[in-house]
Amino acid sequence: MPNNAKLLLTTQQLNWLNDNLANKVPTEARQLLNQLPAEDIAHLLESSPPKHRSVLWKLLDSSLEGAVLSALTEEVRQFFIESMNVAELAQSLSDQDSHDLADILTQLPDTIVSKVLDCMTSRDQMRVKQVLSYPEGTVGRLIDTNVLSVNPHLSIQTVLHYFRHEYEKTHHLLTPLDEIYVLNEVGVLIGVVPYAVLLSKPADCLIVDVMKIEYFVFDVLTKQQEIITTFERHRFVSAPVIDSNKKFIGRLTIDDVMSLIREEANNTVLNMAGLDDCQDAFASAWKTTKSRSIWLGVNLLTAFLSSSVINFFHDTLEQVIVLAILMPIVASMGGNAGCQAMTMMLRLIAQNQVTSGNIRWLLGRELQVGLLNGLIWGSIVSLLIWFWFSNLLLAGVLALAMLINLSIAVILGASIPSLLQYFKVDPTVAGTVILTATTDAVGFCCFFGLATLFFR
Amino acid sequence: MPNNAKLLLTTQQLNWLNDNLANKVPTEARQLLNQLPAEDIAHLLESSPPKHRSVLWKLLDSSLEGAVLSALTEEVRQFFIESMNVAELAQSLSDQDSHDLADILTQLPDTIVSKVLDCMTSRDQMRVKQVLSYPEGTVGRLIDTNVLSVNPHLSIQTVLHYFRHEYEKTHHLLTPLDEIYVLNEVGVLIGVVPYAVLLSKPADCLIVDVMKIEYFVFDVLTKQQEIITTFERHRFVSAPVIDSNKKFIGRLTIDDVMSLIREEANNTVLNMAGLDDCQDAFASAWKTTKSRSIWLGVNLLTAFLSSSVINFFHDTLEQVIVLAILMPIVASMGGNAGCQAMTMMLRLIAQNQVTSGNIRWLLGRELQVGLLNGLIWGSIVSLLIWFWFSNLLLAGVLALAMLINLSIAVILGASIPSLLQYFKVDPTVAGTVILTATTDAVGFCCFFGLATLFFR
Repeated sequence: MPNNAKLLLTTQQLNWLNDNLANKVPTEARQLLNQLPAEDIAHLLESSPPKHRSVLWKLLDSSLEGAVLSALTEEVRQFFIESMNVAELAQSLSDQDSHDLADILTQLPDTIVSKVLDCMTSRDQMRVKQVLSYPEGTVGRLIDTNVLSVNPHLSIQTVLHYFRHEYEKTHHLLTPLDEIYVLNEVGVLIGVVPYAVLLSKPADCLIVDVMKIEYFVFDVLTKQQEIITTFERHRFVSAPVIDSNKKFIGRLTIDDVMSLIREEANNTVLNMAGLDDCQDAFASAWKTTKSRSIWLGVNLLTAFLSSSVINFFHDTLEQVIVLAILMPIVASMGGNAGCQAMTMMLRLIAQNQVTSGNIRWLLGRELQVGLLNGLIWGSIVSLLIWFWFSNLLLAGVLALAMLINLSIAVILGASIPSLLQYFKVDPTVAGTVILTATTDAVGFCCFFGLATLFFR
Repeated sequence: MPNNAKLLLTTQQLNWLNDNLANKVPTEARQLLNQLPAEDIAHLLESSPPKHRSVLWKLLDSSLEGAVLSALTEEVRQFFIESMNVAELAQSLSDQDSHDLADILTQLPDTIVSKVLDCMTSRDQMRVKQVLSYPEGTVGRLIDTNVLSVNPHLSIQTVLHYFRHEYEKTHHLLTPLDEIYVLNEVGVLIGVVPYAVLLSKPADCLIVDVMKIEYFVFDVLTKQQEIITTFERHRFVSAPVIDSNKKFIGRLTIDDVMSLIREEANNTVLNMAGLDDCQDAFASAWKTTKSRSIWLGVNLLTAFLSSSVINFFHDTLEQVIVLAILMPIVASMGGNAGCQAMTMMLRLIAQNQVTSGNIRWLLGRELQVGLLNGLIWGSIVSLLIWFWFSNLLLAGVLALAMLINLSIAVILGASIPSLLQYFKVDPTVAGTVILTATTDAVGFCCFFGLATLFFR
């Protein structure tokens, strides 16, 4: 394999390498590591405990540091940025993509930001400042400004000549993706020409005659969720971005959208389990404890709420001690049924599929599901309890409590995400805790309430 | 807007349209609907309750049916396939992509499959049969065979002439993505040439001199998880696929990988909540109940397990009734801490980041986190309980139970996913239920066991 080529490894090979780099002599490990593409090095760093990380980082050529920093997730990047001095950092970052760089710079204190900018050409500085001028979570933060635009009155032949001339001058290839943009004299986008068209259509055709005039443009302020659903639906590879004056300012490419999808998916799973979505999985025990303990604290509050509900029925409980044995059943069935309904709604919301027209249908369907499952499992449970404790009244109370609790739980589960969204709270973060608190409280109220009614 | 162009709408516009199509006169609604791209129509169908769906489907031009069926998710597609007659279905499917079609055909009974194949050219038949010959969940099922390959000894000029000649003959453009493949005389892949190279480098260069000889190839049997992590890490737009004899058989494109990512992400979230990942979100109440009730049944079993543990300590409970009031606290804190650890491990496993080298570090860190959180929240809880019930012994028992339970819970949460994976069980499906069952049982055992020890 030639020396300037990058080793492309499968994930398995990469993980093997990670476990065995430590056993190599440093010069060999250094050579192996620096042969890898920046993304693979980032994977190795992200999959390593802190001590191993520092060792790997020291083995890394300083010329690769910038690219590796760009490829790292925010949290792991922070780990290394803290250990670098400003000059080193500025140097290693200065030749990164404008939007990768903007992403990194938002993490840094202002003094370092200005030092990094000082190391760049004024054109690159302008690009980064432009990207930083758009709010986080919008298309603007992701635009790739390194694109080619042409005049509509050129021929394909002329455009190709221009590309080849540029290449001979600068030895820079065209960007690999996937179309060029046609602008009028004031910079307004009027068409796109896929590379495939440039390669297939007769060379004497004019751009204006071969350009696609129907295409999807993103406004620079389009939100992340809309970007994802649009790219997924239309299977775009890239899409042009315009500003509020309809002027072309760059494009959005699928690799960045893929990162957004991954991020959004991870955040949903992590948030629902009460994990900080920015937490490095290999953080120290103390950092991990801090980030997780908040959620446990919130959970403790809701557990105390349940306890007070039970305490409220203290007298009933004292008389019918078996209620204490059965109460986990009602609460856990309600919690689970509610969680099913909520998870379904969260997915629908994430895919932009909930509309004012179908939400009523969905809630109605959920209520039916809750009633049906309540009937099914309520009957089964009451039979089991009847056999276990030979107490028909107890069995009936439990069945009825389960029917009511399951029906309320699914309605709560299905409506909490939309309600939270309406109040601009992230439903993946707050949904689970609110749902558990309410289904537990409702479940215990039903069960003990009915028991008080029938047993005393 | 010209008549042959497709309207590209934002998701918001699309949802508005969906809510208002029903109010339009049918001819107008039909016209609006059939102007949309197939993917948008699929979105409308997927976001609609069954009745609305049937209305929309009837408005659809039969020429669009195949493309819309391909764009639908499996479950919603099934809904329509059941309503179509075989001839209609075979006709509408016959001109779809080979791997889209293979995907659909696996859903259909054999008699219909052969009818659909009969409607196709023998070349297309062969392609579909080839795709179907690979196991589900491998690259083979996703390959795009509609690609161009060239001889290494041609010049760029000659290749461009060939493209243009082909276009003039067939009026088919090159596929929009992103490189052509260079094969030797026996069909073995020896290089790739990005479109950008064809457009930038001097026209008299030979392919063999400009082709990239370092690239990532997928074996046709590569598994889905490895596809995803590799595409994400290297930000590929497409990648060539070879068979076991190193022969080139097609390529994998990013749009299909993006669907895989979405699918995998959705499945994780849905499975963890005990939802069937193949369930149509707008299925009828009865179908939904059936698919959800299995999980509730499993959950009921684990709830009975908890009840039996409590029942085992019946005598203690009778003497110290306040234990019943406090027991939800121990169980829910353990469940939550375990769930945090498990979710983190599931993410790491999905990203192929767990290795034999780092798992011990991770488990050790988790144990520390469990102990720390157990100390923190155990102390806080015991203080609260002391104030509430003025019973120092009770407070101490609860704190100790929480410390033990939290420590065991995080170790369980962190190790269950890897254990399940080792036994080839999907950890996202079985993880939650096993974790809840064990943390509840362990929690109640600790709490009541300690109480029995100290109070009797």
